[in-house]
Order: sequence, then structure tokens, then C-alpha cells
Amino acid sequence: MQKKLGILGGGQLGRMLIQSATDFNIQMGILDSQLEAPASSLAKHFVQGDLLDEETVYAFGQDYDLISIEIEKVNTAALKRLEAEGKKVYPQAAIIELIQDKGKQKEFYRAQGFPTADFLLLANKEELLAQTDFLPAVQKLRRDGYDGKGVQVLRQESDLGKAFEAPSVLEKLVDIQQEIAVIVARSASGEIRTYPAVEMIFHPEANLVEYLFSPARIEENMAQKADQMAKDLIEKLGMVGLLAVEFFIDRAGNLLVNEVAPRPHNSGHQSIEGNVCSQFEQHLRAIYDWPLGDSQIQTPSILLNLLGEEGFHGPAKLEGLKEVLAISGVHLHLYGKEDCKPFRKMGHITVTDQNLERLMEKARFVKNTLKIRGLHRI
Amino acid sequence: MQKKLGILGGGQLGRMLIQSATDFNIQMGILDSQLEAPASSLAKHFVQGDLLDEETVYAFGQDYDLISIEIEKVNTAALKRLEAEGKKVYPQAAIIELIQDKGKQKEFYRAQGFPTADFLLLANKEELLAQTDFLPAVQKLRRDGYDGKGVQVLRQESDLGKAFEAPSVLEKLVDIQQEIAVIVARSASGEIRTYPAVEMIFHPEANLVEYLFSPARIEENMAQKADQMAKDLIEKLGMVGLLAVEFFIDRAGNLLVNEVAPRPHNSGHQSIEGNVCSQFEQHLRAIYDWPLGDSQIQTPSILLNLLGEEGFHGPAKLEGLKEVLAISGVHLHLYGKEDCKPFRKMGHITVTDQNLERLMEKARFVKNTLKIRGLHRI
Repeated sequence: MQKKLGILGGGQLGRMLIQSATDFNIQMGILDSQLEAPASSLAKHFVQGDLLDEETVYAFGQDYDLISIEIEKVNTAALKRLEAEGKKVYPQAAIIELIQDKGKQKEFYRAQGFPTADFLLLANKEELLAQTDFLPAVQKLRRDGYDGKGVQVLRQESDLGKAFEAPSVLEKLVDIQQEIAVIVARSASGEIRTYPAVEMIFHPEANLVEYLFSPARIEENMAQKADQMAKDLIEKLGMVGLLAVEFFIDRAGNLLVNEVAPRPHNSGHQSIEGNVCSQFEQHLRAIYDWPLGDSQIQTPSILLNLLGEEGFHGPAKLEGLKEVLAISGVHLHLYGKEDCKPFRKMGHITVTDQNLERLMEKARFVKNTLKIRGLHRI
Repeated sequence: MQKKLGILGGGQLGRMLIQSATDFNIQMGILDSQLEAPASSLAKHFVQGDLLDEETVYAFGQDYDLISIEIEKVNTAALKRLEAEGKKVYPQAAIIELIQDKGKQKEFYRAQGFPTADFLLLANKEELLAQTDFLPAVQKLRRDGYDGKGVQVLRQESDLGKAFEAPSVLEKLVDIQQEIAVIVARSASGEIRTYPAVEMIFHPEANLVEYLFSPARIEENMAQKADQMAKDLIEKLGMVGLLAVEFFIDRAGNLLVNEVAPRPHNSGHQSIEGNVCSQFEQHLRAIYDWPLGDSQIQTPSILLNLLGEEGFHGPAKLEGLKEVLAISGVHLHLYGKEDCKPFRKMGHITVTDQNLERLMEKARFVKNTLKIRGLHRI
């Protein structure tokens, strides 16, 4: 019997983590505020409760030997108390706390010498108004942004009206050529392994990944640089678990750290079919202190996020399922979310093929054919 | 929302079926007599009840649109009533009934012209005693044999003392050169797809598969013959779902049908990592009448059943886990069975590698290193 694992958060990441943990006989408990969270029906134990409430998180943690997360927005005071009592909390509470705050994250990169876009920390909108010289820039809320929310571009003075009021990071707008990500794992014993870099193409409106290519279409020396930087980052953090490191490559060819997430990540879903060991299994191996898995690519792949169509809401309706399932190497993953809203991540599809041209063709077909939308017009 | 799926049986096959069904948002219910069955904790709905009791199975079926099985030993009278009321039952009740009885199975092969070892049907031990001329032979109980139980070799007259009393099939002992299996799927629309043949090496004592090679080490024309025979068999049965067809190849090079199972099967577990579409997803595609998946081999693989060690019983204890996880392409699947008994199937390992020599080497290492046994000496 393995150590009992408690996970804070029951979204799609928790769901896919349970699918993988099942193969190791890991008894997993989930804490989430939503009774119908994607991971709820698969969890051996499910507790409904607020991830931000200290006593709820603390009480939940009592039942487990090992505690991990699938979302950063959790109460870290409770995690620190659990750590102090000898529980294993991976990633460690202090690291979650650092990453929760995009301001602290940026200061960490600067202090440790990791290249990152120039930035200012702002307490409120008033402070921002004094920084018109810094435009064009991206304003990011220091806390609680997710899936493209809490991030906006401020190109010129006339944009300042829509600026966020809350504490934020103002980051010089990078002239982006490509966005890539490297997932790196570090086990409790200190073993480190990276996944080959992937490349993200963002949806122009929703600020969400629309296509993801594995491997990234970059030069070998750039891939090595990103790989080394991801290793250095997790080493410097001293983190145990999985860290997704997102990078910008600017038009001058500079590699800049954008941000990190200390958990399985959207930019690693294709590893389920495309790589020898999936990111979910890798996360488990890291936190259980088993040898890390082989992260090599077996088959090139494209990941497509299945986002709710605009203009509809309500119970999800899938169109084009039979057409896409007729194609070899189309792997569907639905997240079990009942309510479909515009741009909500309802699932993903990984398309695999050894032939890159055919891979692109298939991905395009899937993109144009498979749609998910709510039953009702908005 | 997909049609609700009710599965009779909650063993490891049901467990792996849920892992796959999760990706299609299929809400699955499980009926099993054991509260702690391997699939119980993952099932959206779990009902504890006797699979052989007509009213239990009938009542369970009421809650689902589609009913399938992961074990043949179920009450088919209930399934026939459900069919009569318009429920989809795949595989169909009449086919389960045919396959439940090894005597009827053999008669079917003979009547339909499928080559199979010569046989006699015997009502009891007394009838057997009159058939000493038929030895050496294999006696198989017509009903309820599984995992090597209910099957024995009777070489000579002196073996007859241990003969089974119950109705049985007496089958001429085949001088076996190889044992292979082909898994074939047929969808409700009649689309048919086979998996490339695999080769089984049996444990000498336990009569259970010890190693399985994918693909089988056979000539191309033999592979084609087995492939065509599996297709003809499922077509002749008119079955919807997955059919595992086990064959003997005798020393004269004849291909003989041994027996079939109308569900995901131990000889297809390696398809999770080794083939484009796993047998579990294929089963779902067939019964939901979706296009069948690509069954091609992506990576050659060896499957090892993880059997409880002799001499021990009680809570399962795993040895050698870290050593085997350190090897690339070792995929562990534990079935969540608490009680470990000698030769009980506690899990399996799929080893993948493009290089066949390295593949064999890894499999041998795993076989010698990873052990599971009960906590207590017997």
C-alpha cells in the first residue's frame, strides 16, 4: 500500500492525476469547493470545502501522509502547519506562496539572474498612471489570475482607463516570436528531469493555448538553453514535484522566463500519449520519491484545447465526435464539466503522428470539426 | 452527455475500462459482489450484488441505456429481459450464453467450420472413464472455469482419478508450438477491426499467461490467417463489442481456435501503451457505435502478469518497485486488490521498446525484480 495522497483541487488536472495514480494503487483524496468537480467521481475520498480556508485545508490534510496540489490558489498557512507537523507537502508551502504572487515570482527571477521581461510592481491604479513611459506593457494581477483572466495589454495612455485597481505587475511588452514551455520534475531525492520543450500558439481573443506542438519548432541550442534554465529554476527553488516553465522567445532571439506553475500543466497533457512517461505519472514519481520516468517523445503530437464555443451556455453538447474519432491517433479527453461556457476548457485532444505534415493536417481537421457548446444561446 | 453505461463485474478489466471511459465523459455504473472490487472506487455508481442473480442484474440494468460485461459469468436471463425491453446489451445475451458454455463454444466452431482440437462432450466422470482411447487429452469444465481453474491435462489412464465430476469438454491434447491471440472488435454498425496477433507464454504451474509478446513471433501468412479467422468468428457470431480469440499453433503448423472471451482480455493489456488505440477504448467505441480506433502497434511490447508469490497471503507487499521504475518504458498497472494470494493476478507490467533485444532484457529484469506477495506466510 502506497502512502495516502491528498490533493488540493479537483479540476481536470486532479482528474488526470487520479487516472494515473490508479495504476500505482494510490488512494487519493480530493478537496474542492465544487461537489461536481471533474475529479470528484473518481476520487476514493472527496471532501467538499474551500481551498482558501485555513481550517478546511488543515483538517483535510490530517487524513493524508502526502499532500499535493493541482491549483496554486490554496491556503498556504494550513500547508505550513501540516509541514511543521511532519507531513510531506509537495510542492512545499513556501514555494506555492512565492508562485501565487506574480510580483514575488518576478523578483525571484531578477534576484537569481534568470532573464525575464523588465517590470515594475504597482500597488494600485494610481501608481500605474504615473508610469506612462513604461508602455506598451502587460498588466498582470499579482494574485488569482488564471486562464488568461487578470492579464491585459496596455499599449498606450488611452488604454489606462481599463487598468486593474489591485496590486499588479507591469511588464514591458515583449515582441514575441514564439512561446515555449519546459516541464521539469524534481524528486524528493533531488533527481531532475525535463520534458522536451513544447511550443504554444495562443487563441487571439481568449489568451488561452489553442494549439501546442510537441516538440517545439526551435533550434537545438535554444532547446538546450530552455532545458538548462528549467533545471536551474527548480534547483534554485529546491522544489519537489513538477514545475511548468513558460518562456518567451523575442524577435531578437532572447529567451525570457514568463511564468511558472508548480504542478501538472496544460502544456504537458500531450505527454499522456506522446511521451514515454506522462507528466501526471512524473508528478507522482517526484512526490513519492521514485526514480523519475523517461520523458522522451515517442510520437510528435499536437494538443488542442477544446474550448466552449462563444454564444452558448448550459449543458455541454459535442459536435463532430464520430468524424474525429475516425482518424488514427486522435485522443480525446473530456473533463466532465457539466456547464459549458464560452472559452471554458471542456477537454483537450491530442493528435499523434510520426509524419509532421499529416499531423498538422489532422490537427486542422479536428480543430474545424470538433465543437463543444452549451445547449442554450446566450 | 454520453449514454449511461452499466458494467457487470468490477474487476481489473472494469477498472481499466473506467480509466478509459473517463476520457469520454461516460458515466459508468458497476455491479459486483465485492464491495472492495478493483473498479469500485472509480465507479460513478457502484452497486454491490450477485452477478448471477436474475433480479439483481435486471434491477441494475434498469438504470442504464447500455449494458456490457467485464466477466462472462453473469445472469443472461436478466440480460435477455433487458434486451426485450429495448436496452442495448453488448455483447448480446445469447452470445454470452454461448460462450459461458465451453461445450457450446466448441460445437459452434465445429458447426461453422472453424478448425479446433477434436473433442467430446461429457456429462460426468463416469462417461469420461469410457473414453480412455481419447487420451492424452485436456478436460475443461463446461462452465465457470477461469484463470487456469477448471482445466486439467489427463495424459494417461492413471490420471483419471482426478477427473472433474461436472459436465466437461474432453479435448485432444494439442502438441502446441505456440499460443497466440487476436483481439477483434465489431461495432454496432458492423465495422470490424483486429489487433495484430500477440503471443502468450504460459506459467508452467499456474496455467496463466506469464509473458506476452506484441507482436507475436510468427510468419506473416500465419498472422494473416489468424487475423482473418478472428474476423470471420465475430462476423459469424454477429457480436457487438470486443472478442479475444485464443489460438493454438501445433507442431504441424495448423492454426486451431482454442477459446474466446467476449470482452477486454488479458492478452490486450499491452495495447494501452503499445498500440495507437487501447483495447479498452476500442471496446467503448464498438458498443457506442463510434468509428473503431487504429489498432496498430506503435511500440513492440512485452506484458508480464504480476502474480502473487507462492507461500504467502494477506495484504499485498510490493518489492523491487524503485528498481523497475528506473527503467525507461516500464509501465506498472496495479489492480487495487487488498488480499494477495499465490498466483492471484495483482497487476501487470507493460514494457515497451523499439529494440527487441533490449525489450527482452528489460522484461527479464522486471520479471526477476518486481515481486508481490502477501504479508503472512501460509
